[in-house]
Amino acid sequence: MNPIQVQKEKTRSWTTRRDAKRERKDGLSGITDGKVIPTENIVDVLETLIKPGDRVVLEGDNQKQASFLSQALSRVNPEKIKRLHMIMSSVSRPEHLDLFEKNIAERVDFAFSGPQSLRVAQMLEDEKLIIGGIHTYIELYGRLFIDLIPKVALVAADKADSQGNLYTGANTEETPTLVEAAAFRDGIVIAQVNEITEELPRVDIPGSWVDYIVEADKPYQLEPLFTRDPRHISEIQILMAMMTIRGVYEKHKVQSLNHGIGFNTAAIELLLPTFAEKLGLKGEICKHWALNPHPSLIPAIESGWIESIHCFGGEVGMEKYIEARPDVFFTGPDGSLRSNRTLSQLAGQYAVDLFVGSTLQMDRDGNSSTVTSGRLAGFGGAPNMGHDPGGRRHSTPAWLNMINSDEPLARGKKLVVQMVETFQSGNQPVFVESLDAVEVGKEAKLDTAPVMIYGSDVTHLVTEEGIAYLYKTDSMEEKRAAIASVAGVTPIGLERNAKRAEQLRRDGIIALPEDLKIRRTDAKRSLLAAKSVEELVDWSGGLYEPPAKFRSW
Amino acid sequence: MNPIQVQKEKTRSWTTRRDAKRERKDGLSGITDGKVIPTENIVDVLETLIKPGDRVVLEGDNQKQASFLSQALSRVNPEKIKRLHMIMSSVSRPEHLDLFEKNIAERVDFAFSGPQSLRVAQMLEDEKLIIGGIHTYIELYGRLFIDLIPKVALVAADKADSQGNLYTGANTEETPTLVEAAAFRDGIVIAQVNEITEELPRVDIPGSWVDYIVEADKPYQLEPLFTRDPRHISEIQILMAMMTIRGVYEKHKVQSLNHGIGFNTAAIELLLPTFAEKLGLKGEICKHWALNPHPSLIPAIESGWIESIHCFGGEVGMEKYIEARPDVFFTGPDGSLRSNRTLSQLAGQYAVDLFVGSTLQMDRDGNSSTVTSGRLAGFGGAPNMGHDPGGRRHSTPAWLNMINSDEPLARGKKLVVQMVETFQSGNQPVFVESLDAVEVGKEAKLDTAPVMIYGSDVTHLVTEEGIAYLYKTDSMEEKRAAIASVAGVTPIGLERNAKRAEQLRRDGIIALPEDLKIRRTDAKRSLLAAKSVEELVDWSGGLYEPPAKFRSW
Repeated sequence: MNPIQVQKEKTRSWTTRRDAKRERKDGLSGITDGKVIPTENIVDVLETLIKPGDRVVLEGDNQKQASFLSQALSRVNPEKIKRLHMIMSSVSRPEHLDLFEKNIAERVDFAFSGPQSLRVAQMLEDEKLIIGGIHTYIELYGRLFIDLIPKVALVAADKADSQGNLYTGANTEETPTLVEAAAFRDGIVIAQVNEITEELPRVDIPGSWVDYIVEADKPYQLEPLFTRDPRHISEIQILMAMMTIRGVYEKHKVQSLNHGIGFNTAAIELLLPTFAEKLGLKGEICKHWALNPHPSLIPAIESGWIESIHCFGGEVGMEKYIEARPDVFFTGPDGSLRSNRTLSQLAGQYAVDLFVGSTLQMDRDGNSSTVTSGRLAGFGGAPNMGHDPGGRRHSTPAWLNMINSDEPLARGKKLVVQMVETFQSGNQPVFVESLDAVEVGKEAKLDTAPVMIYGSDVTHLVTEEGIAYLYKTDSMEEKRAAIASVAGVTPIGLERNAKRAEQLRRDGIIALPEDLKIRRTDAKRSLLAAKSVEELVDWSGGLYEPPAKFRSW
Repeated sequence: MNPIQVQKEKTRSWTTRRDAKRERKDGLSGITDGKVIPTENIVDVLETLIKPGDRVVLEGDNQKQASFLSQALSRVNPEKIKRLHMIMSSVSRPEHLDLFEKNIAERVDFAFSGPQSLRVAQMLEDEKLIIGGIHTYIELYGRLFIDLIPKVALVAADKADSQGNLYTGANTEETPTLVEAAAFRDGIVIAQVNEITEELPRVDIPGSWVDYIVEADKPYQLEPLFTRDPRHISEIQILMAMMTIRGVYEKHKVQSLNHGIGFNTAAIELLLPTFAEKLGLKGEICKHWALNPHPSLIPAIESGWIESIHCFGGEVGMEKYIEARPDVFFTGPDGSLRSNRTLSQLAGQYAVDLFVGSTLQMDRDGNSSTVTSGRLAGFGGAPNMGHDPGGRRHSTPAWLNMINSDEPLARGKKLVVQMVETFQSGNQPVFVESLDAVEVGKEAKLDTAPVMIYGSDVTHLVTEEGIAYLYKTDSMEEKRAAIASVAGVTPIGLERNAKRAEQLRRDGIIALPEDLKIRRTDAKRSLLAAKSVEELVDWSGGLYEPPAKFRSW
């Protein structure tokens, strides 16, 4: 047998994708002016460039949304465009789901659906959409180059020139990654921009990667997702923040870290220049960050705590402040922030000592999820940053500090901290017998239960009761006892055995505030470096310009 | 206490990095012409732009090397430039280590040092260099944005225009990531290029990210690292490849995968259009790849096996073939390959079903390393792709197939296959009591032993004896017995108990060739779709142009 003669597909075309792209673009002749799509023609253009069954990646970052394009896509004729397979980091706008209601799209792969989580669950139940998978962000990005290669990319930028060069500025986020996957695989890239101008502040994405640009009827949607008003930080959150600073950051010499969204971590940020400064920790902890530009970090930056911050995305109102602090932030030659969600997630996975997250539910083994009954929320970046990356090979003091054994091949661990009050607002216990996610997963016919962070990855659990040093436990039984010991009067906490808890305390597996030399009565709002948004503005010397909804003065 | 008044650092400058960059660049006035450094001035220029103690990232990809810049750096005056902290993916050229011999540099963070591994170990012993850490590639890239932010980036591109726009073409690899880390943090970016021309085929990196370009005296070094001549594939390797296809790929329906460098995996690639085709597996397995453009994949591509390949880098000689196969490869509008080491490693970590690797040593628990006595080789991408990524949340049939339990929170696993003959050439056993890496790590004063892939991540072990399905074992004792059962007459294999092995076979934990319906005598070279480089060229219709050293005709 000569396999060459037998098997070679001699008649096959190897340029079907390229030919299909050319044909679709040819269909537009007369409508576009070079790369520029007239704003009012966008629906026609999408109906010409997109075909039924296409895999379409639609930009929905944490903050930036390709809102003009998503609205246009929801207005195409479902007789012409149907069965689309949507890939979206974030399902966050009503029309994202209208696509499925109208039968324009049928399948979705996503990472996060916070604002639409209720409707996602309902539509799934009504069989109005099919979920391919729920992902962590960079897992979804990885698939864009393997088995979810897009035919069309719909993205958002601040500005473009007529050559299609894009300026994405502070909100660069995931745009370059989505564009790369389509542009280099004969996909079609369409960018909505706030403005077409021949004078770009800088080029973030080269024009040769972009097929079309369209000036949107209004600027893309941008949400200040990471702004937390210090007025709403409670004294319990301050107590937990004090414990975390002493019992985790100081104890393990945490140099590099990520903080998620939330008041718990905002409290930590606002205690660095006060409580932590008094402890003499400046320069010892919290120097390098993978983090969105949280306004609550301003006092720590201004008081010299922070060496560097690499950002997933921007934050509304922080633009001028960031431009004035290039020693801390990654900025371009034009002065504005360069964010990059792919690279910052990569750094947050592999290059930082610690991740702190929060959750809505945790079971007795430490597994947690924000998916609760009726809400299919997805997880965003938490699974990525909230696990011990098995490929890590370099060491840092905090990472080494997690080693518990004398084995010759023992290695360190990433610190994964869960910081939760034992009850949510509304008096729902956080510690539960079984995660709602198990049932939701079954109902949604997911292959596995939608767990956000697995108990096997959690090294520390911080509640208002104390800290459980889970990385020190040597059996599942001991781990459960440690979790129960700080779980308050929740169903899991009530399983607590007082004697056992005392033993765990003596063994250093749990620590109460007093063990960390923290008096509960010291946890006062007066410790916060800024107690209001107005004070954050003061710290910034007027450079931080909070959105109207955060202004009370 | 008013924390604002007490703690704000009022006198601090926030632009020290930007100011330092401007000052250094001002020192060049008169020498450069815009962004262009005259070739003959490169050493002077480096002595002006670099300062003692700087963190310098020097591009050394797997294949592409910034060889002109590394040579120039090794010629600077060590009185002027010293104590550099080098960051290099790959320590692969003699002058990389000359930098340390000459006391220009003192510290290095790297990922791979294959060709220089002996000298690295020796210099470490002589205290001529300090190793910060050994990394997997994207772990090192992550740190460029956290705690290893570079002051200077020295990179290589094919072409530049006078504005500094770069064309990196097929060998884009890690260049954009290294440039981004420096460019957006007031670092200085210098790119050596083979040619300065105003007509770039496409723009891979925007000019506004690049400070200087210099035309190199000769093109950058480029090694055909991933080319394996089929003439050297042995029948044992063919046997192992047959077992892997049947006992792993077919059994678990592996759709997406990475293959490393090596003859074992080249054999698999060359058996797809013959052995696997006969089994009716076309379209069922091996459709999507994260992989360098291996010439040994040509027959599988030509016979319609492969839907997509995303590449870490290019491969010398494959340029025209890739340009003619855009349905399979990621290519630019100019037709040439777009590789991206960061994104392909991300995909190889999070988005593929399976990784196959090989190793020089494995211990009884399945831990393995290519670090052996006297050689500190590093690992490159293996730790990243050869572990189960804890952040993965989407499922595929192969991933789900690794579930062994009924637990409600059970999840799948990435398939990590180690494929080794029980003895290396030179009659060194691969299966050993203790990895040399343990001793090497101690001698080199590394914080942890330099393990490449941990036994806890390995799901399958394939040797010429059979396959051990390690993911099915339920205790360390059972795992050890399974490893010993396929470890031949090595020290570990001699611990094998024949009765136990029979039991493991009945339990489906090990499989011999006959259990997979493979006759050892069928493992013939005639099964290979191409038996020589010349036949690969034939398969490609003459499009593949192998480097001279692979030509025998």
